[in-house]
Amino acid sequence: MKLENKTKLEEFFSSHDKFAQANGMKIEEIDDGYAKTSMRVEETHLNGANVCHGGAIFSLADYAFAIASNSYGQLALGINTSISFLNSAKKGETLYATTKEIDKNHKLASYTITVTNEEDKIIAIMQGMVYKKDKNIIT
Amino acid sequence: MKLENKTKLEEFFSSHDKFAQANGMKIEEIDDGYAKTSMRVEETHLNGANVCHGGAIFSLADYAFAIASNSYGQLALGINTSISFLNSAKKGETLYATTKEIDKNHKLASYTITVTNEEDKIIAIMQGMVYKKDKNIIT
Amino acid sequence: MKLENKTKLEEFFSSHDKFAQANGMKIEEIDDGYAKTSMRVEETHLNGANVCHGGAIFSLADYAFAIASNSYGQLALGINTSISFLNSAKKGETLYATTKEIDKNHKLASYTITVTNEEDKIIAIMQGMVYKKDKNIIT
Amino acid sequence: MKLENKTKLEEFFSSHDKFAQANGMKIEEIDDGYAKTSMRVEETHLNGANVCHGGAIFSLADYAFAIASNSYGQLALGINTSISFLNSAKKGETLYATTKEIDKNHKLASYTITVTNEEDKIIAIMQGMVYKKDKNIIT
Repeated sequence: MKLENKTKLEEFFSSHDKFAQANGMKIEEIDDGYAKTSMRVEETHLNGANVCHGGAIFSLADYAFAIASNSYGQLALGINTSISFLNSAKKGETLYATTKEIDKNHKLASYTITVTNEEDKIIAIMQGMVYKKDKNIIT
Repeated sequence: MKLENKTKLEEFFSSHDKFAQANGMKIEEIDDGYAKTSMRVEETHLNGANVCHGGAIFSLADYAFAIASNSYGQLALGINTSISFLNSAKKGETLYATTKEIDKNHKLASYTITVTNEEDKIIAIMQGMVYKKDKNIIT
Repeated sequence: MKLENKTKLEEFFSSHDKFAQANGMKIEEIDDGYAKTSMRVEETHLNGANVCHGGAIFSLADYAFAIASNSYGQLALGINTSISFLNSAKKGETLYATTKEIDKNHKLASYTITVTNEEDKIIAIMQGMVYKKDKNIIT
Repeated sequence: MKLENKTKLEEFFSSHDKFAQANGMKIEEIDDGYAKTSMRVEETHLNGANVCHGGAIFSLADYAFAIASNSYGQLALGINTSISFLNSAKKGETLYATTKEIDKNHKLASYTITVTNEEDKIIAIMQGMVYKKDKNIIT
């Protein structure tokens, strides 16, 4: 991916994705069909069991999924995701979500997103599908 | 469900689920194996496409799922959820997540969670499974 | 749904779905966006644990899902399904899969499919999404 | 994995999984937490659209998933699977399902199963979770 496009995409997602911003999520890497995001688990990410909320983990994975699937410039909307929560994450840990593109055509594409902690322990694994509109994401 | 237990459960989730709190989610109803949560879509819930973020919708559904599955007092952890995003939600809309208990035994239980807007349009549908620990949620 | 179309659809699926036929699956009911299928659990449906194979249960649910999603005449292809296996089924039991249409537009549609036994015990619950082609299923 | 255990496991699944047998599925490889299965797409595997039935693809993936998750000897039951169908498969093609173990503890384990054709085109990708009983599969 050209550096210029990478920068545009990063700026777009960093400023337009308010939910990711509000919850302390960052973009680490962007490439064609690929993204890596991160989040430090803070007090506000905890659930009733005092570990990182499934919604926060999902959102981090979804953020990487959105960037990767929109990286070609065509608007891609998440239509279905399935996530398995494998290990819990505690306050103070930094989590990373990395994507793998499984398949894509002009209307649908499929990704696997893995959420790990700093010691590469797998926290969650997500499978996601997008539907692509006949529209560009950045106009 | 006894009113006393209902109150305890509501207090527990309202105060301990920091992520739900931080993102403006509320508990509307609680009963045995049942919960209804709500969230008004604010600026901070939006994604890059200017509609409610999948992560926010997931989190609202997950919040209802957590309350419903923990309503019997035994600690229940979400292990797998699959969500289909069917319609987008805009800023200013209020979303509701309601649960339906499909099946439960002493170790596993399964729920369907439906997210609708004020006009009963279905925004998303989630299927979730919990694994129950030999532990109570409120000690 | 007009009786004539119902008959056409039933004939189409009964004769063209070779896998459903080969595995003893039957169509019980058809309507707009709705189908009910059945299967008696035989020796050939069993898995290594001597209960009905997940693949057989999935296929029964998928059969109902395919008929329901194609019932309007437009070719609909299953793109994503998530299934939770809740209770086991034994040889000699008859299983039923019934569909519920959650949402549909001209390109995507979503269904919940419930598999029960004769005593209405839930064996499995499936959530499925189809992508619709600009093509009719019966030409 | 010791050759002796490999042989036992293969014999068990080859003879006891009646559904896999009835639908022409074979075991290609077995190892600790790993399995590869295959199936030649025959007339009996076709659906109404004349391509390999989603139920047959699922069953092939599920077969590999079952062997991999039971490979340690402890009885593992599939509780949740999510599958995305990415490309269709035609009569005469041979399909392969290979597993990847994502995480496991003494009660739960998670796998990704990829179904490909002879040219390594991805036909489907499945994410599956098992619940382990306090029981051995081969007694």
